[in-house]
Amino acid sequence: MCSAGQYTIMNPDILRERQNATFDIEKLTNILDGGAERTNRRREIREVLVLNDPDFDYGTPTSLPTMILKLREYGISDPVEINWYKRGNPLEIHLAMFLPTLLNQATPEQMDRFFTPSWDLEIIGTYAQTEMGHGTHLRGLETTATFDPATQEFVMHSPTVTSIKWWPGGLGKTSNHAIVLAQLYTQGKCHGLNAFIVPLRSMGTHMPLPGIVIGDIGPKFGFDAVDNGYLKLEHVRIPRENMLMKYAQVKPDGSYVKPLSSKLTYGTMVFIRSLIVGNAGIVLSQCCTIAIRYSAVRHQSEIRAGEAEPQILDYQTQQHKLFPLLATAYAFLFAGQYMIDTYNRISGDINQGDLSEMPELHALSAGLKAFTTWTANTGIEVCRMSCGGHGYSRSSALPDIYVEFTPSCTYEGENTVMMLQTARFLMKSYRQVQAGQQLSGAVSYLNKVHHRVMAPQAVSSQLDLNLNTLVDLYEIRAAMLVELAAQSIQQESARGKCQEDSWNNSTIDLVRASDAHCHYMVLKMFRDKVDQIEDPGVHSVMSTLAHLYAIHGMGNFTGDFLQAGVLTGAQVPSVSKCLKGLLAEVRPSAVLLVDAFDHHDKMLNSVLGRHDGNVYEAMFEWARSSPLNRTEVHESFHKHLKPLQAKL
Amino acid sequence: MCSAGQYTIMNPDILRERQNATFDIEKLTNILDGGAERTNRRREIREVLVLNDPDFDYGTPTSLPTMILKLREYGISDPVEINWYKRGNPLEIHLAMFLPTLLNQATPEQMDRFFTPSWDLEIIGTYAQTEMGHGTHLRGLETTATFDPATQEFVMHSPTVTSIKWWPGGLGKTSNHAIVLAQLYTQGKCHGLNAFIVPLRSMGTHMPLPGIVIGDIGPKFGFDAVDNGYLKLEHVRIPRENMLMKYAQVKPDGSYVKPLSSKLTYGTMVFIRSLIVGNAGIVLSQCCTIAIRYSAVRHQSEIRAGEAEPQILDYQTQQHKLFPLLATAYAFLFAGQYMIDTYNRISGDINQGDLSEMPELHALSAGLKAFTTWTANTGIEVCRMSCGGHGYSRSSALPDIYVEFTPSCTYEGENTVMMLQTARFLMKSYRQVQAGQQLSGAVSYLNKVHHRVMAPQAVSSQLDLNLNTLVDLYEIRAAMLVELAAQSIQQESARGKCQEDSWNNSTIDLVRASDAHCHYMVLKMFRDKVDQIEDPGVHSVMSTLAHLYAIHGMGNFTGDFLQAGVLTGAQVPSVSKCLKGLLAEVRPSAVLLVDAFDHHDKMLNSVLGRHDGNVYEAMFEWARSSPLNRTEVHESFHKHLKPLQAKL
Repeated sequence: MCSAGQYTIMNPDILRERQNATFDIEKLTNILDGGAERTNRRREIREVLVLNDPDFDYGTPTSLPTMILKLREYGISDPVEINWYKRGNPLEIHLAMFLPTLLNQATPEQMDRFFTPSWDLEIIGTYAQTEMGHGTHLRGLETTATFDPATQEFVMHSPTVTSIKWWPGGLGKTSNHAIVLAQLYTQGKCHGLNAFIVPLRSMGTHMPLPGIVIGDIGPKFGFDAVDNGYLKLEHVRIPRENMLMKYAQVKPDGSYVKPLSSKLTYGTMVFIRSLIVGNAGIVLSQCCTIAIRYSAVRHQSEIRAGEAEPQILDYQTQQHKLFPLLATAYAFLFAGQYMIDTYNRISGDINQGDLSEMPELHALSAGLKAFTTWTANTGIEVCRMSCGGHGYSRSSALPDIYVEFTPSCTYEGENTVMMLQTARFLMKSYRQVQAGQQLSGAVSYLNKVHHRVMAPQAVSSQLDLNLNTLVDLYEIRAAMLVELAAQSIQQESARGKCQEDSWNNSTIDLVRASDAHCHYMVLKMFRDKVDQIEDPGVHSVMSTLAHLYAIHGMGNFTGDFLQAGVLTGAQVPSVSKCLKGLLAEVRPSAVLLVDAFDHHDKMLNSVLGRHDGNVYEAMFEWARSSPLNRTEVHESFHKHLKPLQAKL
Repeated sequence: MCSAGQYTIMNPDILRERQNATFDIEKLTNILDGGAERTNRRREIREVLVLNDPDFDYGTPTSLPTMILKLREYGISDPVEINWYKRGNPLEIHLAMFLPTLLNQATPEQMDRFFTPSWDLEIIGTYAQTEMGHGTHLRGLETTATFDPATQEFVMHSPTVTSIKWWPGGLGKTSNHAIVLAQLYTQGKCHGLNAFIVPLRSMGTHMPLPGIVIGDIGPKFGFDAVDNGYLKLEHVRIPRENMLMKYAQVKPDGSYVKPLSSKLTYGTMVFIRSLIVGNAGIVLSQCCTIAIRYSAVRHQSEIRAGEAEPQILDYQTQQHKLFPLLATAYAFLFAGQYMIDTYNRISGDINQGDLSEMPELHALSAGLKAFTTWTANTGIEVCRMSCGGHGYSRSSALPDIYVEFTPSCTYEGENTVMMLQTARFLMKSYRQVQAGQQLSGAVSYLNKVHHRVMAPQAVSSQLDLNLNTLVDLYEIRAAMLVELAAQSIQQESARGKCQEDSWNNSTIDLVRASDAHCHYMVLKMFRDKVDQIEDPGVHSVMSTLAHLYAIHGMGNFTGDFLQAGVLTGAQVPSVSKCLKGLLAEVRPSAVLLVDAFDHHDKMLNSVLGRHDGNVYEAMFEWARSSPLNRTEVHESFHKHLKPLQAKL
C-alpha cells in the first residue's frame, strides 16, 4: 500500500501550523540524528534505498532482493543505520543474528566454511534458541547435543514436545541452516548451553534433511511476511566442527574446554537491548507524527456553540493524550542515543580489559528495554485510538506499527524478567550502601537513601516544579521505592521465609522500584541532553517538552510523591495546573515538533500522517484500490449470499 | 481453526488445580447467568448452535447460513442471548441494527414493504451513519436528503469527500439496502437528521444502482470477514415513502411534522451501551480463562534454586497481572447485569410515561461503556503478554479477541466523549447540591460533598481496609474529584473565560471525575451482588475477589486517596501488603474461578486456554496444519529466494 501520492495543495490547517515557527526544525533534526553530518548520511541512505525506487515497499518479499543488493552496493553495514530501514522480513534473523553470531563465535575455519556462503545467501540461517516450553530462562532449554567420539559427530535431538524449537524468524520455510542452542553432553557430563550450526534443508532442492521436522508455526498477530518456524530434531548428526568453537571447545577425544569468560556474549545482548530502547522512541515518534498531523486537520464537535467545528488538536483531552507521548518519544530517542554511546565507550574499555562499568550498563539496558517498550506499546494504542475509527484502518499504518512493535515486550528478554534483573542490581547496590560502601554511577543517589527517605525532605509551602527540582524528586521517589522493596524482602525473611520466597513475595515492589529507577534515568538523560542544546529556540521548546515529560509522570504517580512526602495533598492541583499550562505551551509547536522527526511520507506510509494533510482524499483513493473492490460484485455474493437467500 | 480436539489424559498440573475446591463452581456459574434456569437455557442454545455441529466455525461466511437458520428454527431472538454467539460477520449490522431500526421507526406500511423481505434476507441492510469526516458528533453529518414535491422524492446526496459514508459493516459488498442518516431539507429549511431507506444494489444482479458509488474501505486491524464500506450518493432519488416516518414525517406538500419526543431513540442507545458493559466482562473472562489455565501448566525459571521450574501462576508478578483482571471480569459481568436489569425496569416505567430515571441511566451507561471498554482493552493485552511469546500466536485466540474488541472503545460513542457526557451529568448534579437540592440515586453521595471533601475524614491510626469501608473511600474519592473538576471550571470562569472554554480547559479533570464515579459504581454493584450470595463457599470467594478489585484500584490510584486525606503515606505499605495477601488467597481458586465462566473449548478456540491443559500437543498440531505447511518447500523459494541467490 502506498499513500505518498502527491496533491498540489497543502491542507490549509496544516499549512497554518507550520507558519511562525519559534525554532529551527532542521537544527532539532540534527540533534536527534547526532549531528548535521549524520542527518545527511541518513537522508542519503533513504534516498538510495527508498525514495529513488518507485517499487520499493517494505516487508514484501519482492522488495527484499533490491534492498539487500543496495545495502551491499552502498556498503551500509552499521546496524544502527540498517535499523532505520528494516521491517519484518524473512531474512531479518539471517542478517541480524545469524551473520553477527558467526562473526562473534566462529573459528577462522568456520568463517571460511560458513560466513562466505552466508554473505552470498547460499546459506540462509536463523537462530534457534527459544523452545515451545522455554523462553527467557535459557537454562531450561531441553534440546541436546551429545558428542559421539566414534564418529566425531554431535547427535542433535529434541527429546520432548516442549523441547521443539519454536518462533525463530525465517525458520519455517526460508532458512537452510540454523544456529541451534543446545545442552552439550560429552563424556557423560552436561556442560550447559552451546551453539551448533545445523544444516536444515538440502542446498539444491530445499527439501528438509533426514531427521529434520520443520515448518511454519501458523498465523500470528502480525508479521504475516515472516515464516516463524518450528524445528524438531530427531537424532540429527552433525560434524564436530559444526560447534561454534571460538570460545568453548570439544576436543576430538570428547574433552570439553570452557570459554575464558562467560561474559563475552553479554555485550551483544546489551547492544541489542540498547537498540530496542531507541526503537521505542522511533516508533512513538512515528505514531505521534501520524496522530498529531491528523488531529491538526480533523475537525469535530464544538467547543463554542455556533462556531465551526474546531481542529481536534484544540481539545484539552486530545492534547493530554498526545503531547506527553510526544515528549516521551523525544525522551526515548535521547535515551537510545545515550545507551548506544555508552555501549560504544564501554566496549572500548572492555577491549582494554576493563569490565567494571558493564554490570551497571547491563542492568540499565534490561530495565530500560522493559520500561521503554511497555510505555511505547501502550502509547501506540493511545495514538491509534486518538484517531477515532480511522486509526483502526490499516491505511493509518497504526495497526501495523502495533503488531510489529508489541513482540519487543517479550523478545530479547521478557519485560517483567528484565525489570527484575535491574531490581537485582538495585538490591545489591542498596545492600552495599547499607554495608557502608560509597556507590558511583547511576545508582549513586542510593548513597543518600537512609538519610533522606526515612525522613523525607520538608515540603516547602511554595511548590517548586522546575525541571531540575523535578529530577531531584524523581530521584527521591526511586530511592524510596528501592528502600521499600528492600524492606519487603527483609520483612519476609524475618517471617521465616527462605531467601528465594522472600524475593518472590516482594517482586511487585521490586518491579515498581526498577520502574521508578528507569523513569528517573530517562528523565535525567532528557534534562542533560536539553542542557547541551545551544540554540535558544530549540533549547526553549525542548525544555518545555522535558518539563512536560516530568510533570505528566508526576501526575500519573502522584501517590509515590505524596508517599515520599515531597508533595502534599493540597499541592496536587498545582501539579495539574502546571500540566495544563505545559500542554497549552506545546500546542503551537506540536506539528513542527513532529516534522522534526523527519519521517518521509513514503516510509511512514500513513494516509492520516501525510505531510501535506490531504487525509480524506488519500483515504478515499486508498480504499478504492482495496483488493475487494476489484469487482463491483464480490464472488461471495454468488458463493454464499445467493444460496442462503434461496434456502429461506 | 479448531483447537478443541480431545486428548484422553488431563494435564496433571491443571487436574491438581481442580481438586479440593472450596466452593461449588456450578452455583457460581448460575449466579453469573442470573439463575440455574438461564444457565440451562444458555447451554441448550450452545449445544444447538455450536457443539452439535462439527463444521461450525465463527465468523466464516460458510457458517453463517447455518447459524441464521438455527436462530430462526429455535426462535432465539433475545439480543442478550444472541450476543453470546455472534462474532464479526457481514450480516451483523443487518441483524443488530437494520432490523431493530425498522422495528422501532418504520410505519406499518414500511414494515410490510421492508421488514418481511429483510427477515427473509432478500433485503440485506446496513446502517449508514458515520461519515469520513464525522463520527460521534452527529450534528456534523453532511449527507443531505432534499425533498422534491414535484416528483414526491428525496434527493440523497454526498456534497463533499468528508460526507462520504464510511465504516458501516456489510456496506461494501454485502448489503443491497441501507438506512442512511441525512440532514433533511424541505421547503428550503433544514430539519436535522432523519433516517431514509436507500436501495443500493439491484436485487437481481447485485450491481450498484445509478448514482451509488460504493465499495470496501480496505484492510483493517481485524474483522477481515466484514466488508466495512463507503457510500457516495450522487443525487440519488428515493420515494417519499422511504423516509422512516413512525415519528417524524414529511407530508406530500413538503411540510415537516416533528417527532413527539426526541428522546424516543434514546433507549436503544442506552441498551446497546449496557450490552457493551457486559461484553467487556465476557471478553475479560475469556482472556483470564486462557491466561490463567496456561499459567497453571506453563513452567518457567525457578523460585528456589535446584527445584523444578514452578508453574508460572506461582510467581507473584504473574498473579499481580492476572488476578485483578479476574476480579475485574466478575465486576464487569455483574455491572452488565445491573445495567440490563435497570434498563428493563426503567423501560417499563417509560411505557407508563415515567422518564425520570432515564437521564441517570443514560449518563451511567455512557461512562460505564467507556470505563469498562478501556479497562478491558488494556486487560486483554496484559493477558496476552502474560502468556509470553505464545500469546502472540493466533492459536492462543488472544490477538483475535483484541482486534475484535478494541473498536468498542470508539463505536457507539467515542470513549472520551462518553466520559464527558457522564461528567456533564455530574456537574449538573453538583450544581444542584450547591443550590441546596437533595439528590437521590447514584449521585446521592454528592449531597455530603461540601461537608466532607473540604475537610476529609480523619484518618484513623489503624487502617481499616474491609470491603464496606473501601466502598465508602471510593465514594469520597469520587466526590473529591467531582468537586475539583467543578472548581476548575469555576476558576477558569473567574479568569474571564467563556463557559465553553472553561469547560474545555477542565476536561482532564472532568474525565478523571467520571472515571472515579464509574469506578465507585462498579465496586458498589460488585459489593451489593456479593451481599446477595447465600451459599457460604461462593460468598467467601466472591468477597475475596471484590476485596481484591477494591484494593488493587486503591493501589493504582493511591494518589487520589492520599489527596483526599483518607490515607497517609505511612499507611501505603499496608495497602500493598493487603493486596499481596489477597493474591495469595485467590491463588488456590484461580483455575476454578475461570472454570466457572463456563467457556467451552470450542467457543474459546484457544490452544492455551484448553480445559484439559494439553497446551503443547495442541499447539504443535495446530502449527502443523498451518496453510504454509501444505508443502515442504514453499513456492516463495522458487519465486524469490532462488532468483535472489542467482543474482549474488
